[in-house]
Formats: sequence, structure tokens, C-alpha cells
Amino acid sequence: MGKVISGITTSLDGYVTGPNDGPERGLGEGGERLHYWVFGGPWSYAEEPRGEATGADKEYLDSIMANMGAVIGGRWTYEAAEHWGGQNPWQVPFFIVTHRPEDQPKDGGFTFVDSLDAAIEAARAAAGDKDVHVMGGADTIRQALRAGYVEEFTLTIAPVVLGGGKRLFEGFDEDLDLEHVRVLQSPFATHITYRVKGSQR
Amino acid sequence: MGKVISGITTSLDGYVTGPNDGPERGLGEGGERLHYWVFGGPWSYAEEPRGEATGADKEYLDSIMANMGAVIGGRWTYEAAEHWGGQNPWQVPFFIVTHRPEDQPKDGGFTFVDSLDAAIEAARAAAGDKDVHVMGGADTIRQALRAGYVEEFTLTIAPVVLGGGKRLFEGFDEDLDLEHVRVLQSPFATHITYRVKGSQR
Repeated sequence: MGKVISGITTSLDGYVTGPNDGPERGLGEGGERLHYWVFGGPWSYAEEPRGEATGADKEYLDSIMANMGAVIGGRWTYEAAEHWGGQNPWQVPFFIVTHRPEDQPKDGGFTFVDSLDAAIEAARAAAGDKDVHVMGGADTIRQALRAGYVEEFTLTIAPVVLGGGKRLFEGFDEDLDLEHVRVLQSPFATHITYRVKGSQR
Repeated sequence: MGKVISGITTSLDGYVTGPNDGPERGLGEGGERLHYWVFGGPWSYAEEPRGEATGADKEYLDSIMANMGAVIGGRWTYEAAEHWGGQNPWQVPFFIVTHRPEDQPKDGGFTFVDSLDAAIEAARAAAGDKDVHVMGGADTIRQALRAGYVEEFTLTIAPVVLGGGKRLFEGFDEDLDLEHVRVLQSPFATHITYRVKGSQR
């Protein structure tokens, strides 16, 4: 069976978005710098980013994609991404956790499920020998960590301090032990991959 | 002239101590794991740690020590460390920032100063061509980052989630750009060194 893995990008001060995130500014004020690594360099909200990850960033992305069998995302992320234009952007099943599964669009390849537990079960079945990737947002990742689902977690840290926004670990009060798997660094990010050993409380 | 550098260890969730830090439990509940890297492996509050940093951890420590010309610490850190037994633990001048400089003990090699600005000025003069190291605590580091003093900053991340304690970036609302200098990783910590490029606001 594959693993349940997760990963997200934060600033040094632990924010997954800058202040005032929302439509047209999905990563908040100044938060586009969090994802320079995704596009191979600087981009702005005013212009669609066009580049691709290179070097260590590509190496990290490729390692995720190579074994990805299903993806889980939260409803907020789905909305913030403007439904990815109405089409599942991954080549694998994509489960959206939401209190309103009846909102699932007929087309587009998204499967809406009403709880993280249900999403994990369905995603594991869909992924088979491959990995289930919990992509976020922060709340969904916190839930997955709290429930003990996440076996491998990658903290990607962009070289910025945002000074405000949404914190990855906001309200998270579990004590977890982890173990290093590897670290990759490009000019735009440091990717630290951990094995989650479990709760200490 | 040397640089002003700073560094501190946090958990993945950004805490420099676990919950309920204080005398006899300087790093809070579960927080001793933050400093496994300092002592080459696990230790506990019940027993004095005896080991030394090894491998990548030693490499990082040695790189700091090799060019360290003066150290700045906050009063809280001085108290939490129980005055290092009454003796400056460094081989170089050690400045303690405090609202009560008159508390300076006659012996022990500590110099009490009444502001961070004064500490930086005195430490720079004392360090000459060598570096000034702002060791912490969190509040002193935030002040130094906010004032633009810190030229190089090392975020050392221990592979634990603490779920509570004192956050390094609590109340910090500046937006800073940084640049990677290098990354080192041992089983006990990831040391990411940044050049601080400056404020974006």
C-alpha cells in the first residue's frame, strides 16, 4: 500500500498566505513569493505565472508526482483556486473535503466527500499502491496530522518573513515527533521532508 | 567590520520553547528535544546533558564560534539560563539587554546595557572584525530583526511539533526578504542560514 503524504509552503514565520488572501490574491499580500519555487522564479498576481520549477524544486515536485495516486484538498483551497477552471488539474482522482458534498459539479473530475476520514478511505482505495497526497489548505493538513494519517510531511520554507496571514499550525496543540527523510534547497525554497513518528501526548 | 548574525532553534510549528517553560525546565515541556542537536542526542531535564554536537551540528556551531567577536542576549534568557552559573560562558564579551542595568553583577564577565541599540554599538566595538551574535531570546531577536540589525539569520528547526509554548515570531508584523546562504542537516536539526535582504514595507 502507498503512503499518506502531505506538504505545504510556509514563510519563515509559518504563514501559508500573507495578509488579506482571497480571490485574485490567493496567497495574500506578498504571498506570491511563497510560490516562486513552483514557477522557477518571481511572478506577480498581475500576470499569470508561466515558468516551471527547476533544479532542486523540480526534483522535489517530480518525486511527489512520480508516486501520486490520489489527492485530497479542502473546500477552501478548491474555492481559492477558483475550481482550477472547472477541471481536476491532477492526472489522478481528486477528493475535496466539504460540509456540502451536494455541491459537487457534474463534470470536471472532482469527488466531493463530507469528511476527512471518508476522503482518506476513498483516496487510499483509488491510489492502490501509490501515495495519497493531502495538499491543503492548512486546516485540512492540521486535521490530517491530528488524526495521525500523515506518514510523510514536507515543510517547504520560502525565504521570506510575511509578518501576517494564515498560520499553518494555528490552533494546533498536538506534540509530534518526526524524523528527517531529506532536505532539498533551491534559491527559492528549502524542502524538508519528515517521517511522522507520532504523538507524544 | 564583522557582521551582526543571529540564530535560534524552533520546532516545525515555530516555538522556541514548549509549554510552561521556566526554571528547571528552560525549554518547556517536551522542549528539550529542540536542543538534542546541541548535545549530540537525547537528554532530559532530570539529568545534565553531557554530550557534544557532532557532524552537521558541530559544523554549524564551529562556523559560528570561529568568527564570534561578541554576544548579545536578553535578560529573560540570562535568567532562564540561571546566569550560566555566574560566569559568561563565551570566550568573548557578552552583553545583556535589560531595563535594569544596575543589576549587573560585579564579577562574571557580563555587561548589562539598557537597550538593544546600545548593546549593538558596544558589541560591534568589542567584536572589531569579528561577528556580533544575537543569541536570543525570541523577543531580542525580533527586536534586532525589526531594527534591521541582523545581516545573517540561521533558523534551526528541530524535527518536532510542540503544539504550544513561545513562538519565535509572536507579534512580529514586518515583511522581510531573505536569501539562502546554506543548509545543513543532522538527525537532530536542519540549520538554514539566510542573508537578510531587508524589509518590503
